[in-house]
Amino acid sequence: MTSALSTAELYTEYSNALRQVADVKYANAVLQWDQETYLPPKGIEARSRQLATLSEVAHNLFTNNKLGDILTELSNRKVLNPREQKNIELSLEDYSKIKKFSAAFVRQMSEAISTAYHAWINARKQNNFKVFEGPLSKIVELKKQEADIIGYEVHPYNALLNDYERGATVSYIDQVFENIKVPLRQLLHQVEEQPAVDAGFLNQHFPRQQQWQYGQHIAKVLGFDFEAGRQDISEHPFTTNFSSADVRITTRIDENDFANMTWSTIHEVGHALYEQGLPASEYGLPVGEYASLGIHESQSRLWENCVGRGLPFWKYHFKPLQKFFPGKFNHVNVQQFVRAINKVQPSLIRTEADELTYHFHVMIRYELEKLLIGGELSVKDIPAYWNEQYKNLIGVTVPDDKNGCLQDVHWSHGSFGYFATYSLGSFYAAQLWQQAQLDEPGLIETIEYTGSTEVLLRWLRKNIHVHGKLYDSETLCKMVTGQGLNSTIFINYLRDKLIF
Amino acid sequence: MTSALSTAELYTEYSNALRQVADVKYANAVLQWDQETYLPPKGIEARSRQLATLSEVAHNLFTNNKLGDILTELSNRKVLNPREQKNIELSLEDYSKIKKFSAAFVRQMSEAISTAYHAWINARKQNNFKVFEGPLSKIVELKKQEADIIGYEVHPYNALLNDYERGATVSYIDQVFENIKVPLRQLLHQVEEQPAVDAGFLNQHFPRQQQWQYGQHIAKVLGFDFEAGRQDISEHPFTTNFSSADVRITTRIDENDFANMTWSTIHEVGHALYEQGLPASEYGLPVGEYASLGIHESQSRLWENCVGRGLPFWKYHFKPLQKFFPGKFNHVNVQQFVRAINKVQPSLIRTEADELTYHFHVMIRYELEKLLIGGELSVKDIPAYWNEQYKNLIGVTVPDDKNGCLQDVHWSHGSFGYFATYSLGSFYAAQLWQQAQLDEPGLIETIEYTGSTEVLLRWLRKNIHVHGKLYDSETLCKMVTGQGLNSTIFINYLRDKLIF
Repeated sequence: MTSALSTAELYTEYSNALRQVADVKYANAVLQWDQETYLPPKGIEARSRQLATLSEVAHNLFTNNKLGDILTELSNRKVLNPREQKNIELSLEDYSKIKKFSAAFVRQMSEAISTAYHAWINARKQNNFKVFEGPLSKIVELKKQEADIIGYEVHPYNALLNDYERGATVSYIDQVFENIKVPLRQLLHQVEEQPAVDAGFLNQHFPRQQQWQYGQHIAKVLGFDFEAGRQDISEHPFTTNFSSADVRITTRIDENDFANMTWSTIHEVGHALYEQGLPASEYGLPVGEYASLGIHESQSRLWENCVGRGLPFWKYHFKPLQKFFPGKFNHVNVQQFVRAINKVQPSLIRTEADELTYHFHVMIRYELEKLLIGGELSVKDIPAYWNEQYKNLIGVTVPDDKNGCLQDVHWSHGSFGYFATYSLGSFYAAQLWQQAQLDEPGLIETIEYTGSTEVLLRWLRKNIHVHGKLYDSETLCKMVTGQGLNSTIFINYLRDKLIF
Repeated sequence: MTSALSTAELYTEYSNALRQVADVKYANAVLQWDQETYLPPKGIEARSRQLATLSEVAHNLFTNNKLGDILTELSNRKVLNPREQKNIELSLEDYSKIKKFSAAFVRQMSEAISTAYHAWINARKQNNFKVFEGPLSKIVELKKQEADIIGYEVHPYNALLNDYERGATVSYIDQVFENIKVPLRQLLHQVEEQPAVDAGFLNQHFPRQQQWQYGQHIAKVLGFDFEAGRQDISEHPFTTNFSSADVRITTRIDENDFANMTWSTIHEVGHALYEQGLPASEYGLPVGEYASLGIHESQSRLWENCVGRGLPFWKYHFKPLQKFFPGKFNHVNVQQFVRAINKVQPSLIRTEADELTYHFHVMIRYELEKLLIGGELSVKDIPAYWNEQYKNLIGVTVPDDKNGCLQDVHWSHGSFGYFATYSLGSFYAAQLWQQAQLDEPGLIETIEYTGSTEVLLRWLRKNIHVHGKLYDSETLCKMVTGQGLNSTIFINYLRDKLIF
């Protein structure tokens, strides 16, 4: 097709079409948010079918051949500006990819995921991986097919990694983990030789309502815009958004655990600040979205760990905290408090892991997925592999499947290739945090003496948020820090923090 | 088209298609609910476009020619059961109607409504009907065209009435109001000759949180299923639903007005009990919906007025109420309380009107709309007509447009033909309430001595709710009460209540 329309007219047609797809996807996200926060229990059946219908509608709108023609035509025209060009490039990539899948394959995958998710729930209830084995094997089989359909070079897992971190490959991530593995183990040994840290005071009784208010206070302090978002309660904390002007975070509250609510709130605020800073003018278009999952996670971890578990932040905010929860923190000083909230402790569960041992959890999953997708490990051998790796790498004995290979939901959702982005996020976070300090010399002092993180947020807005998906992770990292991902910075950051 | 498919197969295709439309419409309703309850202020812009897109998607799905072919084919087959037959009949009616409108007309109407709504907001701000006059004239013009496009007999307003109350006509509603006007005025005179009722104690200070809890308590008492619904706060109370297992009511709280929260909650609970009782197996199909707006309103008013402003209910619930709000109701007895909550007082605002004078407000609007659509009154003459009628019929002097012809949102939404259903609802309510007492001899005593309205709810479920839209209002009324709408029953009910 060679359209008689001008490039501007064609581009308008393209963006209108994409924005309609986005409208439906965001509507879907509203329904999911509602499901996790306010849905009455009997409403779940109708909600499931409403979500399925919206997904189908969005799929049908996006795979419309007319859109394909417009994309092809626009990709051949040369008068677009860089943002427009990037939008067309990314949309065409998505379009071409989605068009490779037959309706039959999509249905098969969707059914396999639904079956696997329920099997995973049951397997956890019965604490028995065998219950999950068959459905998971089906998923793995389909993910292998998916890699074949998409196409790949060198390793089929590359095709899947790309879904979460555009441009990431097995050889790249192998190298990242290779570089960090030994220094991380050395650091762990050093930490373990230090005196034990007391963190017991974090598990006193902290009333629900007070925690709720404190969480909202902290979100405000960090710059979360409550005019362009909200906070609610859900079983698992998450962030979702329906535009950059409507970003919603959730939290959960355990009355016997101050840390759970506080740092999961800061983590979600980190995600949310990114979403609130994405370019609103690119609503519904690729460039209006986050750069990659790794970059998204870098934002949550920068705020949660670099800022929110840092001494400078608490040098200012610890006294107000003591007042907020009278009697709970009187017997500790700010140094003890910060050591407690950074306590390192090899453990079984990834989501409860400290900032250091966390990455061993990720490495095990990454290697395991690679072997599964490469056909070098069978699903039935997962528990044995898992338990052996946990013994070797983290030094803990896995007592049962629930505390072992059944702990994460990801595989039951068909998400293979996701886990590595958690580690990339941490490493990018440390690198960005270092760069912000170089670019803004008074940053730490300002946080320490005024409690305000505004300078940091402004720096992130300017250097990361405003670009959306205009650059891929590595390009963005180089633009901002002058080099690609350098995990040594993470190790140094961690050593400074953990060795006393 | 003569399809090779069996009737059962065709019917399945039909119901799948309709249910997809329903999924999208319910998703739209979730987004609207969210907009009224939890949307952060800056989220409104994206939300507006998301709603517009979902409406367009639902419209496109429903107007698909393939669905039209299926409907025509099914309407010619004779082996459907009565529910299936009714579904096809009603869907074909909707389909044929919607197909009469050109895309251009739909767009024109939608733009005119958007303009008129904003003009109405501004006109209210400036307290000046002139600001609204032009945009409203456009709406009236389009509504006349709409009547012509739909087609009608005798009066163009018939085509519009039918949108809200299937089968209703000008001659029918003229007759209903003709029958009630004089008895209602006589009753008003009688009431006005009685000693004045003191209702001042309803306007003490009732703390927000306590009102919120009391509202939820009352909703539970009346049988609202909180597993299949929720209550939230919004600026204007409303009921919405996303299936019969997810029905949501909202309330507002004025700390200086106990009545506002309480009876608006009971009113919405009445709507909600109906929705929770509709046949779940007919999800997304016409028979799964409410019979008509008149019948819907009969449910809200039956609970609000017949039950919730009745002496029997408060004979039981007044003592707990006194305890719930210590000191607020100590100086009144239950008779004084019930007189106060039924106080008659001619006034300017429809939504604040008592059960008696309310219908004068409706009659004025009904006559006015009839004249506008019939071309016998111009939009510019509305204020003069309005003020004259309020003087004549209700005996009040309208001080300005805001308290006069600018008070209702309906016209700015293009809703002409709606108001009459409010009155029909009240009249049906009284008739159903009388019939329930005849069918369930111990009903009043049970309410009086146990406070439970379960028998009534069961009666309504069996006689009204379960039928959905299988019968039109008048047929349903005849089936349940042995006669069509008889407004004398309403007058007698009101006399019993108001004359002491």
